[in-house]
Amino acid sequence: MSDTLIRGALIPVEDGYTTTDIQISAGKIVAIAPNLPGTGIEVNAASKLLLPGFLNGHTHSSQAWQRGLIPPLPLELWLADGFDTSASEIEQIYWGAVSTAVDTVLSGGTCVLDHLFLPLGHEMEAIAAAVQAYKTVGIRAVIAPLIMDLPFVAGLPQGRRSLTHKPYPQAAPEILAWMAAIITQFHEPEAGIYIGVGPTGFHRCSDELLVRCAELSDRHNLCRHTHLLETKAQFMLAQERYGISAVKHLQNLGFLDHRTTLAHSVWLEDADLEILADTKSTVVHNPLSNLRLGSGIAPILKCIAAGVNVAFGCDGAASNDGQDLLEAIKLGTILHNLTDRDYTHWITPRQAIAMAAMGGATGVNLAAQTGSLTVGKDADFVLYDLENLSMLPRTDPVQLLVYGRPNQVVDSVWVKGRAIVAKGKLLTLDIEELRQALRQTRDQQSPTNFRTIHTIEPHYRTIMNLD
Amino acid sequence: MSDTLIRGALIPVEDGYTTTDIQISAGKIVAIAPNLPGTGIEVNAASKLLLPGFLNGHTHSSQAWQRGLIPPLPLELWLADGFDTSASEIEQIYWGAVSTAVDTVLSGGTCVLDHLFLPLGHEMEAIAAAVQAYKTVGIRAVIAPLIMDLPFVAGLPQGRRSLTHKPYPQAAPEILAWMAAIITQFHEPEAGIYIGVGPTGFHRCSDELLVRCAELSDRHNLCRHTHLLETKAQFMLAQERYGISAVKHLQNLGFLDHRTTLAHSVWLEDADLEILADTKSTVVHNPLSNLRLGSGIAPILKCIAAGVNVAFGCDGAASNDGQDLLEAIKLGTILHNLTDRDYTHWITPRQAIAMAAMGGATGVNLAAQTGSLTVGKDADFVLYDLENLSMLPRTDPVQLLVYGRPNQVVDSVWVKGRAIVAKGKLLTLDIEELRQALRQTRDQQSPTNFRTIHTIEPHYRTIMNLD
Repeated sequence: MSDTLIRGALIPVEDGYTTTDIQISAGKIVAIAPNLPGTGIEVNAASKLLLPGFLNGHTHSSQAWQRGLIPPLPLELWLADGFDTSASEIEQIYWGAVSTAVDTVLSGGTCVLDHLFLPLGHEMEAIAAAVQAYKTVGIRAVIAPLIMDLPFVAGLPQGRRSLTHKPYPQAAPEILAWMAAIITQFHEPEAGIYIGVGPTGFHRCSDELLVRCAELSDRHNLCRHTHLLETKAQFMLAQERYGISAVKHLQNLGFLDHRTTLAHSVWLEDADLEILADTKSTVVHNPLSNLRLGSGIAPILKCIAAGVNVAFGCDGAASNDGQDLLEAIKLGTILHNLTDRDYTHWITPRQAIAMAAMGGATGVNLAAQTGSLTVGKDADFVLYDLENLSMLPRTDPVQLLVYGRPNQVVDSVWVKGRAIVAKGKLLTLDIEELRQALRQTRDQQSPTNFRTIHTIEPHYRTIMNLD
Repeated sequence: MSDTLIRGALIPVEDGYTTTDIQISAGKIVAIAPNLPGTGIEVNAASKLLLPGFLNGHTHSSQAWQRGLIPPLPLELWLADGFDTSASEIEQIYWGAVSTAVDTVLSGGTCVLDHLFLPLGHEMEAIAAAVQAYKTVGIRAVIAPLIMDLPFVAGLPQGRRSLTHKPYPQAAPEILAWMAAIITQFHEPEAGIYIGVGPTGFHRCSDELLVRCAELSDRHNLCRHTHLLETKAQFMLAQERYGISAVKHLQNLGFLDHRTTLAHSVWLEDADLEILADTKSTVVHNPLSNLRLGSGIAPILKCIAAGVNVAFGCDGAASNDGQDLLEAIKLGTILHNLTDRDYTHWITPRQAIAMAAMGGATGVNLAAQTGSLTVGKDADFVLYDLENLSMLPRTDPVQLLVYGRPNQVVDSVWVKGRAIVAKGKLLTLDIEELRQALRQTRDQQSPTNFRTIHTIEPHYRTIMNLD
């Protein structure tokens, strides 16, 4: 990898901006100062804003195939439609991950946490496809296979009349066996590919599975990732099943630590916030998905006040049909102005980019490697074009980026010092190939496949008191 | 204007889609059917979705210059920063309107309602500039000059200690005189330019001004437009000043009718909904601005249930720093899923586009001319590119458009039969000219100009009980 000198980039500093040069060598930032002597490739960054790369802290890449497919429904019924139409071909797994990686890097991300669906019995081929996709595009990726050992209906509050169901086709020992094989074969930190341990959520995992997941991640120093209290139904289920909050239950099982990211966390109670702060867990906020599914507003201002680390995520394309990280950051910033009348508590645009970058890096245990523009860290950063029509007139560049509607503003992206986007174009893959792949499966998913919902909807309406 | 045949466009029909041709002649839709005989210019619309053009039902075009400028603040304090940095040069008015028109047409709009700031004493030149801008771009525009006869501090709840203030520099007779001149000179329906009567809001208008506005619009059959109950402070002010709801007060003054659009309407009470339905008034929902300013969530599902017509707006770029109508429609669709647990009440993507098109047209009293794909109506419609990467894979095109993150998907736009966008490019203006105009005023607005806020903030915090 060549040395690179970024010349004359605008960067935010306390109370303003300054123009500086950045020297990259062997994938790392080695100097940040004006007027550096040139070594290696020189990149003219005049009229460009340079920011550390963001983390997309929660998505499900294979849902790229379900973008725009599912009608307005709450999570539990949306899941039924999702299961009926999920993509399971290995080629779809590959292109889904490519699509997610491309959308992420072209909206400011240099790292993605993919809570990846693996078709039963095809786990190794599927994860191989996703790893190949992320290596091809060149984004850093934490891939946490979705694992569970309880069937769908067991994840619903049962109410007065329990639903009957067959057992889930895999049990903890079998799951842990293929997870161990995946770790051995694919966890490759030096290549920017990290395997995470991702039980889908307490609602569909036995305590045994959750405990063994925690042990597995401890043994290999891997990130842990799970859905948490996304909906009121999940909140009700925790009360029904444990009699204590889901957060307390996860703490009791030893699941929460500084490498644990908790997607959604919408239905937290005040006492949960202390636990999350004490355990140094990270909340991953997915505002667009939370609105699309009517899940609620995650108490992000309360998290911040309690000292809980917060990152942003897009969630999968079946529940946030765009995968634009800047859109998620915008909404995850302004949405919370509804929740506190005192505007001095509102998230500022500068705070938002710090959450997206450093909050994200901290969440996936990469704070020493990425998340800020710091000498010694890996060169993971993005140049935004300040001459782009959507960034004009030039008032406050960070506010334009976070509050505006940036349109193709990502000019250049480096991940671990490798240039993967330049002049707005992906360097690592012909985007036309992706477009052709997505075109070819037209009509493969279809609303006519929606069947499971009919078996669940009456129970859901009853337990949620909707009739 | 040439006859045009749109060949093979996809259009939504009940429960699905069909492919059809559309014949335009003399600016109107004259036939909609498959396999029409070709007359005039033929446009190949294969793999394109055709929808009626949307209305951007509320914006302030000159705020294009304040995009990204103002920090996170509630409306009343944001307004102070806005006044200190507002653009008032005639050239800025022109380019602000061009910018707004371009952003609107490139995000599916064929009509904009511009609640336009006119610099005091320069009303005629300023409106002439805006009219020129809209005619140049070719969008249909309702231009409602912002008018008021009470000063800024009179628009705040006074609480226990009234604020002293000078009278506003213009009184109703003078305002009505230049409004009459503007109507005479610029109201030109046949050219798609409509003057509206736009008192800024009850909070800064005397009853006399509001009554005379209603009379003026009746006399000339003009649209009425005003801000309504955007914030809790405005709700408090109405109680303090009138002792009844602002909606009831406006009804008593004769201000509400079928040509009246009410921007925001966040703090409506249930009794207000009946009044709005009875008077056939339209609520213009501006979800992004309402979040940015922490104003609240307008009760849109309740409006729909009560039979109140609803349209979407972007609001000005100082409070919604992007001006993308599709973004406003998306958020204005999914946001309300928070407000009703029963998902059968949620706004569907198809309902959303009907609100954006027909809801908008109805609001500005143009339902007979535009808002739907109907033989005899003006040819105001948009082709969206279904082969665009952000619209793939092709699942449900309307859901992809509303729920997704469409990126440069507008392929073609016609307004009154005139092609103003083709192959994604504006035909009527060189966009590079706009970019150069916006570049040249860099740093003209500056946070260092924020002064007024300091005189108002202590009072605001007291009345809002924030200390």
